Amino acid sequence: MIERIAILGTGLLGASAGLALRAAGYRGGITGWSRTPESAQLALKMGAIDSIAADALQAAKESQVVLLAVPIYATLDFMEKLSGVLGSDHLVTDVGSTKAQISAAAARLFNTPERAAFLPGHPMAGKERGGAALADAELFRGAVWLFTDDPAAQRSLHSAELVKGWRQWVAAMGSKTLDLDPVRHDELVAWVSHLPQFLATALSALLEEEVGDAPELKDVGGRALREMTRLGASPYSMWRDIAYTNTEAVQATLQALEQRLAHLRENLRTPELRAEFEQANRFRRE
Amino acid sequence: MIERIAILGTGLLGASAGLALRAAGYRGGITGWSRTPESAQLALKMGAIDSIAADALQAAKESQVVLLAVPIYATLDFMEKLSGVLGSDHLVTDVGSTKAQISAAAARLFNTPERAAFLPGHPMAGKERGGAALADAELFRGAVWLFTDDPAAQRSLHSAELVKGWRQWVAAMGSKTLDLDPVRHDELVAWVSHLPQFLATALSALLEEEVGDAPELKDVGGRALREMTRLGASPYSMWRDIAYTNTEAVQATLQALEQRLAHLRENLRTPELRAEFEQANRFRRE
Repeated sequence: MIERIAILGTGLLGASAGLALRAAGYRGGITGWSRTPESAQLALKMGAIDSIAADALQAAKESQVVLLAVPIYATLDFMEKLSGVLGSDHLVTDVGSTKAQISAAAARLFNTPERAAFLPGHPMAGKERGGAALADAELFRGAVWLFTDDPAAQRSLHSAELVKGWRQWVAAMGSKTLDLDPVRHDELVAWVSHLPQFLATALSALLEEEVGDAPELKDVGGRALREMTRLGASPYSMWRDIAYTNTEAVQATLQALEQRLAHLRENLRTPELRAEFEQANRFRRE
Repeated sequence: MIERIAILGTGLLGASAGLALRAAGYRGGITGWSRTPESAQLALKMGAIDSIAADALQAAKESQVVLLAVPIYATLDFMEKLSGVLGSDHLVTDVGSTKAQISAAAARLFNTPERAAFLPGHPMAGKERGGAALADAELFRGAVWLFTDDPAAQRSLHSAELVKGWRQWVAAMGSKTLDLDPVRHDELVAWVSHLPQFLATALSALLEEEVGDAPELKDVGGRALREMTRLGASPYSMWRDIAYTNTEAVQATLQALEQRLAHLRENLRTPELRAEFEQANRFRRE
């Protein structure tokens, strides 16, 4: 039923989705488009896509499913453009890390009987560095792929089938799916994804200032330090849109952590330190 | 020349040292002692030690090298007791995570011509959970094993040979060695080891409060969240003595991180966010 998928954006997530679809047995066409021609060429060479589109909107029109795998503001731009050119025989979905603005745009621009369906999606998978060169057919295995505002309930049978079909491919790529309210989604990922990232960035930046001039001292920290700062390699370009579209939720988590660190700092020699370790142990109980 | 080693404390580090020494080809005797008999029995069963001592001081007397692998205050207690019973044909070394107090005690209690030598040591290796059951012959491979106040320079030839012999076994276990001033050591490990631990504890405790009641939501964070909170499983018993013996240095690092997080929080929508990501990227450059 899904004979062609257009992947708009052939970076880490887009190219990995192409590879994962192929590994899962998808035999239809995959058209790729990228703002940077080298990225699409690389995705083609890897087998993540089977053709390169010069025109993203044309490629979308010729596909049943359009996967937007670009930063959040670029996703919102594409949504405006696609809503005018696609009809009810299309499904558009995305991989954006915040969902409130995208879900609101979907309600405004898609999901009426005449228009294409839009399923807001967010695979909780990635790497600290982006780009097609790091694409991996196994990237989504074991990950949770979040959805918000599934339009299938209120849609015609045809679109419901496309949503069902895409969900099956997501499962075939190895992800578990979970449906959340979009505002709840953004609050939740602020805690479990955005806070860890901004924290790793702050910690890495601080350590660069303190011990960055002595490379041999970085080795001293070993595995624990490597893990706690791995996300420090994440580029600003991947996180800017998240900071802008989930600002208040992220600020709340950062402030809560600042207060928690101050509390621990003031209690390094009191019984409260034991309570804090025990609370942390509960989070990691198996 | 080292015919028998006494390992006082057969937990994760002590038992791993025994296994690593055997894997590296050490063929002398290894006597183990533990405060908890079950731990020593387990170390014996694993082959980390070849005999169990009922009396730690007697076991030390009958060995050329004594490895103290107990918490810091227990190490300081043993140093007081051992200095009275050991002579110049012994080397005592340890694995404690802070070195200023231990180095000061070593200068007071050891390292005179009549007394045993003491080499303060700190392997930068461990796991988030302790105990002999997790001991691993490979634990020290690729790690940095820090030393402070090597006594070999000012000692008789015999003790210098024991120090040299122990350093060779440390290298044979797969560790790189690095010598530091003890105060510099404690400041450095506050940044690259203690800060990451206390941070992971605070983050895990906070997340337990926020999302701990919904186990399915923990999965959402994926690898990044698992890495950032792995050390949240570390027990209070392993970290209490570190908090007490390196309080000021740890407080300074925590306060610096609080300020850095506040700075980032206030700049989520300013160009300063890019600067912070770029500074973090520099720490992780390869």
